[in-house]
Amino acid sequence: MSSGPPRWNGWSADGDAPALAAHVAEMLASRIGEGRPSRDAELKDVVARVGEGRLPAHPLVDGGAEERVRHACGQSFPDWVALRSGRLGAVPDGVARPTDGGAVRDLLTYAASVGARIIPYGGGTSVVGGVTPSDDGAVPTLTVDLRGLAGLRRLGASSGLATFGAGTVGPAIESALRERGWTLGHHPQSFERSTLGGWVATRSAGQRSLGFGRIEDLFAGGTLEAPAGTIELPAHPASAAGPDLRHLVLGSEGRLGILTETTVRAVPLPQSESMTALFLPSWEVALTFARDLVQARIPLTMVRVLSPMETEVSLALAGSAGRSGLVTRYLDFRNMKDGRCLMILWFAGRRRVISSAQREVSDLARSRRALGVGGAVAYAWRRNRYRSAALRDTLWAAGYGLDTIETATDWARLPALQAAIEGGIAEAASAAGERALTFGHVSHPYPTGGNLYTTVVFRLSGDPDETLGRWRAMKAAASAAIVEHSATISHQHGVGRDHAAALPSEKGPLGMQLLSDVARRLDPDGLMNPGALLDDG
Amino acid sequence: MSSGPPRWNGWSADGDAPALAAHVAEMLASRIGEGRPSRDAELKDVVARVGEGRLPAHPLVDGGAEERVRHACGQSFPDWVALRSGRLGAVPDGVARPTDGGAVRDLLTYAASVGARIIPYGGGTSVVGGVTPSDDGAVPTLTVDLRGLAGLRRLGASSGLATFGAGTVGPAIESALRERGWTLGHHPQSFERSTLGGWVATRSAGQRSLGFGRIEDLFAGGTLEAPAGTIELPAHPASAAGPDLRHLVLGSEGRLGILTETTVRAVPLPQSESMTALFLPSWEVALTFARDLVQARIPLTMVRVLSPMETEVSLALAGSAGRSGLVTRYLDFRNMKDGRCLMILWFAGRRRVISSAQREVSDLARSRRALGVGGAVAYAWRRNRYRSAALRDTLWAAGYGLDTIETATDWARLPALQAAIEGGIAEAASAAGERALTFGHVSHPYPTGGNLYTTVVFRLSGDPDETLGRWRAMKAAASAAIVEHSATISHQHGVGRDHAAALPSEKGPLGMQLLSDVARRLDPDGLMNPGALLDDG
Repeated sequence: MSSGPPRWNGWSADGDAPALAAHVAEMLASRIGEGRPSRDAELKDVVARVGEGRLPAHPLVDGGAEERVRHACGQSFPDWVALRSGRLGAVPDGVARPTDGGAVRDLLTYAASVGARIIPYGGGTSVVGGVTPSDDGAVPTLTVDLRGLAGLRRLGASSGLATFGAGTVGPAIESALRERGWTLGHHPQSFERSTLGGWVATRSAGQRSLGFGRIEDLFAGGTLEAPAGTIELPAHPASAAGPDLRHLVLGSEGRLGILTETTVRAVPLPQSESMTALFLPSWEVALTFARDLVQARIPLTMVRVLSPMETEVSLALAGSAGRSGLVTRYLDFRNMKDGRCLMILWFAGRRRVISSAQREVSDLARSRRALGVGGAVAYAWRRNRYRSAALRDTLWAAGYGLDTIETATDWARLPALQAAIEGGIAEAASAAGERALTFGHVSHPYPTGGNLYTTVVFRLSGDPDETLGRWRAMKAAASAAIVEHSATISHQHGVGRDHAAALPSEKGPLGMQLLSDVARRLDPDGLMNPGALLDDG
Repeated sequence: MSSGPPRWNGWSADGDAPALAAHVAEMLASRIGEGRPSRDAELKDVVARVGEGRLPAHPLVDGGAEERVRHACGQSFPDWVALRSGRLGAVPDGVARPTDGGAVRDLLTYAASVGARIIPYGGGTSVVGGVTPSDDGAVPTLTVDLRGLAGLRRLGASSGLATFGAGTVGPAIESALRERGWTLGHHPQSFERSTLGGWVATRSAGQRSLGFGRIEDLFAGGTLEAPAGTIELPAHPASAAGPDLRHLVLGSEGRLGILTETTVRAVPLPQSESMTALFLPSWEVALTFARDLVQARIPLTMVRVLSPMETEVSLALAGSAGRSGLVTRYLDFRNMKDGRCLMILWFAGRRRVISSAQREVSDLARSRRALGVGGAVAYAWRRNRYRSAALRDTLWAAGYGLDTIETATDWARLPALQAAIEGGIAEAASAAGERALTFGHVSHPYPTGGNLYTTVVFRLSGDPDETLGRWRAMKAAASAAIVEHSATISHQHGVGRDHAAALPSEKGPLGMQLLSDVARRLDPDGLMNPGALLDDG
């Protein structure tokens, strides 16, 4: 957990992001050039420059400038440039914090009556522009912060069906369940701040989706308050009663309405859990090993495999001291140096079944010439799994930008897709006279393929527009590569505004019309989060 | 496999359904009265009575009377009454057998130009009126038999993504995959005749959904030819790119268009498989044991548990000779007689993991005072798992009707739901001066709940209308109980015409409008299978 409230213009709490270690700074300087730190704008100056909100008074709506600034952005790269430079685009005209479904319905009615757009806001952690108001200034925008809709409402003693206020954040969900002997097992990197409703609206994957399922599998039903009315999605264990409307709400990104109550499928806490780490001799071997483990249905809740470059960066970030240094020296000694790939495995379930699964994995790993390094590296990853987002703050302070590009495709296409994404980014950087450091991992293997999560580090410019231009060029190249290779434009982050232009290539013209039809039926006046998901804002 | 082609007016091949054993006939006579066999209509007489089709000539359309009669019905109870009595309602005006997607598109264009309705037809195994033409006779109907769209088109060597013609039937799918080292693992009871496209269109569950997933999990993508155009659903391993359009096609029951190619997620053949059977001392213990096994994620591919009455009926049908008699005597000897429930388990996976799962299950079973009876009973079930549908023919010949009612709900509601369904059926039968034999099983446990599959046996009347009236009353009572208990109107059979009136209670008015909007966008003239799914035919 962070030590304090998150900073207004980044991820970690003030003073919580560590400084860049000297050897990492050297590595970055040699690969992509010296960072150029620039001075952040001050919150008070930004707040002072915000104009009056244009919303008529409503008891639930706060028109205060600071509240509006604090809800103006998510965590996308353009959001960061806006926040750090203080050059905010549109700022919502008001922020409401409803505490029950009735208040949400009142706010929908109010917004319709004053012609305001509505942005549903959970943890504000969207990295794709999912909560950023459109910049056209045509009509006022009301951001509805849903974190007041919090807490466990009902828990089925035998079913594990757990109904929460949709604004409940990850730690509150897990602690409410765990103290009753249950768990949801859904842990996106934004876990500490993101909300259940946000997970559903963006089709969150969660680090342990292999064992616990993606949010699509966990979301059983709930209540959606739409401008046109209320939809109750029943929480059946499974159904053959026609098309599944849950799958329209999943990934709807606030376009259809606001989830107020959400019912999820919790399971009893596993009898036992265990983690381990090993190194594979090459990326190709690592990918096929991940595939084979999943296709053989070895009961695992997480298989995470890092490319050689991400492995080296991870070892470098962990530092040469202590356990990490021992691991590196051991690998060097065993002559596994070039191309080595870290794999982290997480077992959970009945003790006896886990134990046999571990032995099975060990035997299979031996046949791939893998080197096991025990649990310490895996548990270290787990300790830091939410904190690694703070690296963005650390790098920014050192004059570097960091963004992530993620997609999924089948196993055969994955290597070429990866080469195209990293190659496209390198070209775009080069065209701007810069270099980019890219590295990737597969954190969600499926029987047919895997996700591909690419991290990009590049230098900031002193000019925010130039920084944004560099990012746009690299992002466009990566998105083009994804579309070109028929992969999905997002595996876990969603569409938001940053991917909306690429969506039609995936859904097709008729598919896009279906999505528009559904949005029009539930939101006839087009008030809900325009510009997100569908490229119409 | 059946020994010959299925009879035109039932399930099994002619002469393939065994006669009713004397002790079963006695049991039925004492419980629900003597059966009254009646004489079946002859195919040639029915064919002779069919009028001319009203469709203009088309090279792909067969207007022959026998072909049309053979496509006039599925396998619902009203379908059986029509076939056996020879009183068919509407008969399609023509039957087309396209062999590629281009021909399907031609047929859609042809049907639109002549104003004909279209019924997509796979194996013709719908038990809910999914392929039965509407009786209003307003416009001609073209039934499109898709079994010519057959065979494996592509198989990803590393992904297991397998693209089949959507009209491929179960055995052809499994044999094409198995000879290449893969399996889909999807085995509905209609496996031998139903098609991949039909499984998708009706959200088929499959007996081993616990391990292999329901068709929702297996259906990766494909091509839907709709009157308004073509939709290509990409086969991503997973995606967060907005609402998932696959889930509109899944369960669409021919309302949106015709699936021509379907891509599914095959997995390598498991290293090892094993089955076992055990008896639990009561239904309550059996249900909680099934729940606990699934919630603990013990790696199983099937958990099937029979109520005390279904257990007794199964033992009776198996006869008192051989292994089954031994089992009964052993249970009696061990003093497990009243309330005993048969559970069948199917393990598959890595040998070592299975073996630990078996030991774990044994230990857990011991704590429930279960009695293991080894594999023979389980393997006997597996040998007969597609043939048990022939029991309908056997019973009909003896003067009894058999239908099945299926639903799903969470664990806590299941016992009351079961009582309400069986009680409603008993009351409806009693109001008609009859008795009904009902028994149930849970064949698909999920962490939050289970399906409930109820079999109903009752006497036929000499008058087909009276037989149909008895069925309608019992079916209405069961459906009302399901709606009353907020369970789903179908877990695995689909909606068709028989459940269409109950769907709005589950989807809600806005949900129904969404489904209509989607149908209208893809089928603006309302030609596709009207009356199925949406109560509008």
